[in-house]
Amino acid sequence: MALSKSHRVLCNTVNYFRKESAIVRFLHKTLQCKKCLTPETVNPNFRGLEYAITGPLLQKAIEIEREISQGHKKKFENVMRLNIGDAQSLGQPPITFLRQVLTLVTYPDLMNDKTFPEDAKLRARNILEKCPGGSAGSYSDACGMEIIRRQIAKYIEKRDNVASHWRNCMMGQGAADMAKKFLTILQLSKDGLETGILNPVPEYPFYSSTIAELGLKRIDYFSDEDNQWNVNINELQRAIDEAKSRCNPRAIIVINPGNPTSHVLTKENMEEIVKFAFRENLIIIADEVYQNNVIKDDCDFISFKRILNDMGKPYSDMELVSLMSVSKGVFAESGSKCGYAEVINLDPEIPPMFVKSLSASLCPSVLAQTTVYSLVNPPNPNEPSYEQFEHEKNSIIGGLKMSASIVEESIHSLEGMSCNPIEGAIFFYPRIRLPQGAIEKAERMKLSPDEFYAMELLQETGICVVPGSGFKQKPGTYHIRMTLLSDPNMVHKIMERFKKFHFKFMKGFSP
Amino acid sequence: MALSKSHRVLCNTVNYFRKESAIVRFLHKTLQCKKCLTPETVNPNFRGLEYAITGPLLQKAIEIEREISQGHKKKFENVMRLNIGDAQSLGQPPITFLRQVLTLVTYPDLMNDKTFPEDAKLRARNILEKCPGGSAGSYSDACGMEIIRRQIAKYIEKRDNVASHWRNCMMGQGAADMAKKFLTILQLSKDGLETGILNPVPEYPFYSSTIAELGLKRIDYFSDEDNQWNVNINELQRAIDEAKSRCNPRAIIVINPGNPTSHVLTKENMEEIVKFAFRENLIIIADEVYQNNVIKDDCDFISFKRILNDMGKPYSDMELVSLMSVSKGVFAESGSKCGYAEVINLDPEIPPMFVKSLSASLCPSVLAQTTVYSLVNPPNPNEPSYEQFEHEKNSIIGGLKMSASIVEESIHSLEGMSCNPIEGAIFFYPRIRLPQGAIEKAERMKLSPDEFYAMELLQETGICVVPGSGFKQKPGTYHIRMTLLSDPNMVHKIMERFKKFHFKFMKGFSP
Repeated sequence: MALSKSHRVLCNTVNYFRKESAIVRFLHKTLQCKKCLTPETVNPNFRGLEYAITGPLLQKAIEIEREISQGHKKKFENVMRLNIGDAQSLGQPPITFLRQVLTLVTYPDLMNDKTFPEDAKLRARNILEKCPGGSAGSYSDACGMEIIRRQIAKYIEKRDNVASHWRNCMMGQGAADMAKKFLTILQLSKDGLETGILNPVPEYPFYSSTIAELGLKRIDYFSDEDNQWNVNINELQRAIDEAKSRCNPRAIIVINPGNPTSHVLTKENMEEIVKFAFRENLIIIADEVYQNNVIKDDCDFISFKRILNDMGKPYSDMELVSLMSVSKGVFAESGSKCGYAEVINLDPEIPPMFVKSLSASLCPSVLAQTTVYSLVNPPNPNEPSYEQFEHEKNSIIGGLKMSASIVEESIHSLEGMSCNPIEGAIFFYPRIRLPQGAIEKAERMKLSPDEFYAMELLQETGICVVPGSGFKQKPGTYHIRMTLLSDPNMVHKIMERFKKFHFKFMKGFSP
Repeated sequence: MALSKSHRVLCNTVNYFRKESAIVRFLHKTLQCKKCLTPETVNPNFRGLEYAITGPLLQKAIEIEREISQGHKKKFENVMRLNIGDAQSLGQPPITFLRQVLTLVTYPDLMNDKTFPEDAKLRARNILEKCPGGSAGSYSDACGMEIIRRQIAKYIEKRDNVASHWRNCMMGQGAADMAKKFLTILQLSKDGLETGILNPVPEYPFYSSTIAELGLKRIDYFSDEDNQWNVNINELQRAIDEAKSRCNPRAIIVINPGNPTSHVLTKENMEEIVKFAFRENLIIIADEVYQNNVIKDDCDFISFKRILNDMGKPYSDMELVSLMSVSKGVFAESGSKCGYAEVINLDPEIPPMFVKSLSASLCPSVLAQTTVYSLVNPPNPNEPSYEQFEHEKNSIIGGLKMSASIVEESIHSLEGMSCNPIEGAIFFYPRIRLPQGAIEKAERMKLSPDEFYAMELLQETGICVVPGSGFKQKPGTYHIRMTLLSDPNMVHKIMERFKKFHFKFMKGFSP
C-alpha cells in the first residue's frame, strides 16, 4: 500500500515489461502488494479453513434460489435446505411459552396484557428484577445472569440426580462458542509439541475448523458404523498412539447424541471411553447439545457427568466440560445463539482465568440468555402454560419420531443405501454404495463421489444436503447428511422426491 | 488425576512425611496434581490476565451490595456502579421504537396489536420475511442478515457521504468480539517476532487483555492529556521505534471518541495519525463505538473512513477496520451484545478467510441483530414513531449535556482535581493530584494511589469507579473514570456526595 516514489517509478518500469516475463510479473506483484494483511502475512491457521456445512453445496443452493426468484424454470418449486440443523428454518414452530417470556422481558409494558399467561410474566419479572437498572438492555455478569445459572444447575441436578453448582454453569454465545473458548485455554506448546485433541469421525466440522484455527492438532478417531456408531476403544488407542509423536493429546471430544450420525452411545461404551480418557489423562469435552432430541423408545440420554459420578472414584474426579444449547431440541431457538458449559473438577485456579477472558467481552446477549431460562425452567404441571407447552413439545417429538420411521423405511427400500437407526439428534446419515461409473465421473469432475451425488440431488430435486466428505469418513465409504424435520408430511414428500432421484441416479450408472 | 497403584503407595508414604520437609511437600504436590489442566499447563497467555473494569473495585462493590441487602448499615443507601459504560443499568430508558421492533420480531402475533406503530411493524416484517422459515429462531448468514447489513452500509454512506458496500459490513457479537476476531487474524510469528499492536494509553482494557490472550505484543502510546488527549506523532514514533526490536508492528488501535477520556480527535490529528500509519504500513483499527455520543456543541465526529477518503490517494486505499456497537449512544442496548465492523481495502483473499472462521460459529444472535437494524434505520420524519423517537433521543442527549456541565463545574471547584472537557463518549476521567500522605498510605496498603482513592470513595459514598491504573497512565499521574449518566438530577446528587468525600479525603491528608 505504502508506495515510495522510487517504488512507483520501478512499478511503471515493471508495468512496461509486465507481459514480457514471469520474473518481471513476480517483481511487479511483490511491489504492488504492499497491503499489510495478505494471504502471506495472515495468521497461517486461517489459510485453508473449511466449513462444509456452508460450503459449495449451500453456495450452489443459494444460486439456484436466486435463479428461481428471477423466474428461471426448475424441476422443483423451491430449494429445501436440509444441510443444517436449524429446525425453525424448516418450519418447526417456536415454543409459545419461551417467546412470551422473551417478549415480556423485551417490552415490560405488556405485563398488563391479559393475553400473556401469569407463569410467563413470573419468569420475565424474575429476570428483570435481576437485570441492573431493571432492563435487559444492561450487561450481565460475564458468564450470564446468576438467576439463570442457578436454574441451569437445578435442571442438571434433576436430569442426573447429581449435585451441580451454579458457578460451574457458564453461559456463552452458543455451545460452539464455549467449546472454542475452552479449546483456546488448552493451547500450549510443550517440548515442541502442540496440544492434540481427539475428534470423532464422522465429525461436526465446527471442531476441525476451530482446532485448525487455534493451531491445535487434530487426532481423528473413527466411530464404528457397523456398531451403531459406538466408539471402539482399540480405535481410540490406535489414534492416540499414532498421534503422540506429533502432539501432546490433552482432550477428547465426544458428541452424544451424535452429529451427523444421530446415534446415542450406550452406557457401556461411555464407561469405556471414560476409562480410556482416564488412562490417557484427557479432559472429556462432551458435546451434549442434542440431549433433548432422543426419539428412539428404547434409548435414553445419559450425560457423561452422570456416568463419571456412577463410576465412582477416581473417575468421578475427572475434568469434564459438558456443552448444551438452546438451538436444538424442542425449543430449537438457533437464532438466539446461546448455550452453556458445565465444567467440573477443574483445578480451582482455572475458572477464574477463564472468567477473566470472558469478562473482556462483557457477557452473552441478555435476550439470548432469557431463552435459556425457559429451556431450563419450562412450565410445571400446576402452571397455566403447562398444557399448551406439553402439547407443543409432544407434537414436535411425535413428529420427529414419525419422520424418522418414514426416513428409515424409505432408506431401506433403496438399492445401495443403508442407515443406522435414528436414535437422537436431528439428522440422518445414510451410507451410499455408489456405482463405479458414478465414482469415475465424480473423479473426472474433481468432486468427491458423495459431493457429486449431493450436487446431482440438489440440481434434480432442490434438496440441499451435506456430503459425507464434509464430515470426513472411512476411506471408500460415502454418505450424505440430511436434516430430519418435525413435520412428517413434509418428510414424506421429500423422501418421495429423494427416492425417485436415487432410483434414476443408480439406473443411470448401472453397468 | 490418574494415580497408579505405585503412585498411591508413594503418596501415602509421602503423606506420612509431608510435614517433615519442604522437599517431601514438593514431591507430594507433584504426585497429587495430576489434573490435565493446571496453572502450569494452561495456555500461558491466560496467566495473569486482568480486566480492571470488573476488577477489585467492582468485587468490593458487590460485597457491599450484599451487606446492604442483608441489612448492614452503611453511610449510603445503595452502591452506584459508575465503573462501566452501561447506560440502561444506570437508568437511561431504552428507545421505545427499538424495543417495539424487537418485540414484533420475537412475537409476530402482536402484528395485529394496534398499540404498536406501523413503522415498527414494517421493520419487523422486513426482518421476518428474510429469516429462513420466517422465524427469528433460525440462523442467519455468518456475518448477519443481508437486509441489516445493507442498511448498515446506507447508514455509513449517509454519515460519511462516501460509498459503503454491504459485504464490507460484518456483524458480530459486539464490537469487541469483532475486534478480537480481527486481531486473531493478525497473529503471526515472523523472523521470531510476533505481531505488535499500537494501543492508546489511557486505554480500554479490553484491548490489552485481548492482545495478551492472543499472544500479540502491545505497543503502548500515550495520548496527550495537556492537549485534550490528542495523539502526539512524536510519541507514536517513539513507541513504534522502541518496539521494533521486540515485535513486528502491524496495526494501530485508535478509540475515537475516546474511552476512558471522552475526547474527540481533531481532523488534523486524525490526518497525522493516518500519515503515520501509512508510513509504518499499519492497519488502522478505529474503535468508533461512541460516534453517537458527541455532546460538545463545537465538536463533530468524523470517521476515519471519511478522513482516508478526503485525504485521497494513496491514503484512501489504506486498510481500515471501523467498529460500531448498539451498546452505546442513544440506543445503549448493551445487553443485546451486537456490533459490526466495516472493513475496507482489504486484500480480496482475506474476507473469505474471515467469513469461514465466523461461519463455524454460525452467526450472531438474530434478536441482537434486530436491535442493530433499528440503530441504523430509525424512524424518519414522515413515519408515525418519528416524534416520540426524536423526543426520547433529544432527552438523552440533552441530559448528557447537562450532566457534563454539572460534572465539569464540580470538578473545577475541587482542590487537586482537573479534567479535560467532556466531548464525546459517556465517561469523565479527572486527574487527581493526590497528597503525599495519601500516596504513602496507598503504598503501605499495596494499592496504587488512585486505587486507594477509589476504594475510599466506594466505602464512604457507595460510588464505584475505576482507578486510572486500570487503564494505565503516565507514571506519577492519577485518575479515576466515572460513567456519565443521562439524568442530570442524579448526576447532581452524585457530585454533591463526591465533592464532600473529596474535600474530606484531601483534608485528612493535608500536611
